[in-house]
Amino acid sequence: MFVHHVFFWLKSDNTPDEIKKFEASVSSLKSIKTVHMAEVGKPASTDRPVIDTTYSYSLLLVFNSLADHDAYQVDPVHLQFVADCSKLWERVLIYDSESL
Amino acid sequence: MFVHHVFFWLKSDNTPDEIKKFEASVSSLKSIKTVHMAEVGKPASTDRPVIDTTYSYSLLLVFNSLADHDAYQVDPVHLQFVADCSKLWERVLIYDSESL
Repeated sequence: MFVHHVFFWLKSDNTPDEIKKFEASVSSLKSIKTVHMAEVGKPASTDRPVIDTTYSYSLLLVFNSLADHDAYQVDPVHLQFVADCSKLWERVLIYDSESL
Repeated sequence: MFVHHVFFWLKSDNTPDEIKKFEASVSSLKSIKTVHMAEVGKPASTDRPVIDTTYSYSLLLVFNSLADHDAYQVDPVHLQFVADCSKLWERVLIYDSESL
């Protein structure tokens, strides 16, 4: 499996409407047909020194293959999300993993 | 869902046997009964400025609830993994997320 872990730090001056738009738009990514499994989340209540709780939203996407991930990257729904929402975050950090 | 994203940076002087032991032990975590879905991986071939490719291994665990995650934390298989392998990594970083 190809696991795409994405963490977003949103700008602090986003309006409630912009945050609502971000949540809807990031959730729309789940509909892309090559996505095998998807979860959109926010930091949990767990808190230990090794846990980073500073991000705003997480996006977990699991694909069956690198090719499926690559198709997602150029899917119109993904491109629309980036066009609409990239101005709302100040930082994005990605960890891509191929399963053992 | 409760998503537990874990990234390990192993020490550079681990022996091949120690690395083999780490891979077997981290994979054993998949057997813990409250784990809903699990993937153990290594950095993929993707490489862009927003992608962190510096870690050694990723562990993705998805639970149905925070309670299931909490049960995992104290499961003997997890405690054995930490006892056996914590000396092998120089850094661990966790992102815990609760789904929207």
